[in-house]
Amino acid sequence: MFDPCASGQCPDSKPSAPAGPCPTQALIIHSAEFPAKKVEMDGADGAPIREMITARDGAPHFAMRMFEIAPGGHTPWHKHPFEHEVFILDGEAVLEGEPESRPLRPGDAIFVPGNVMHQFRNTGPKTLRFLCLVPNPVS
Amino acid sequence: MFDPCASGQCPDSKPSAPAGPCPTQALIIHSAEFPAKKVEMDGADGAPIREMITARDGAPHFAMRMFEIAPGGHTPWHKHPFEHEVFILDGEAVLEGEPESRPLRPGDAIFVPGNVMHQFRNTGPKTLRFLCLVPNPVS
Repeated sequence: MFDPCASGQCPDSKPSAPAGPCPTQALIIHSAEFPAKKVEMDGADGAPIREMITARDGAPHFAMRMFEIAPGGHTPWHKHPFEHEVFILDGEAVLEGEPESRPLRPGDAIFVPGNVMHQFRNTGPKTLRFLCLVPNPVS
Repeated sequence: MFDPCASGQCPDSKPSAPAGPCPTQALIIHSAEFPAKKVEMDGADGAPIREMITARDGAPHFAMRMFEIAPGGHTPWHKHPFEHEVFILDGEAVLEGEPESRPLRPGDAIFVPGNVMHQFRNTGPKTLRFLCLVPNPVS
């Protein structure tokens, strides 16, 4: 298994991380402390993203991000070669897909395989929050 | 990037998955529908696990699991070569580590690098729930 510290390939860690080329203890950061970035993709509307754990922290295999989607907002209707692993935290949503749309609720775990069309839509009156994990080096 | 469907290495999918060797649409399963398995590790006390997305679903790179830890319970005090990416859903907890213990709260994102000692302890009166993702083939 790839070990970024043993291989010397560890990327820079965050300013909040311990000194040294790789983290030597766990990093803990509350999700609200991460800046919410606008998603720069066609078809993404009201869907900022917080990139909480990425390769910059020394994470070797996958990245943890959070989307916060305003009422009426959505992620792009698209597909890509890599998978998503999603967990719905709060709100009401629909997963658009082929051949059908399906409702989502908090506590749902969703595996979107690579090359499968998908879109997450906020269908409720409050913010939709979900985690969306992707393999490196996507993030 | 590894594509289990293109390579023909896709493992069996769950009974709830669409027919065929690999899922061709997203899988959606509520976390409460997964059986909670006892963790068979020395030092794990009151810490059942639900394995929500694993290689059996065709997930090629990493697995999503949920721990539900009873008041007073904890995961093992241990280390291993692979990393954890954790998200605290509900409850009060402490992350035991070296050189110190640190409190955790809902919304915390935690990166535990490989080969770093760690233990999650429920320090509150209610169930502690957190997601814990690991690279394949750990799960």
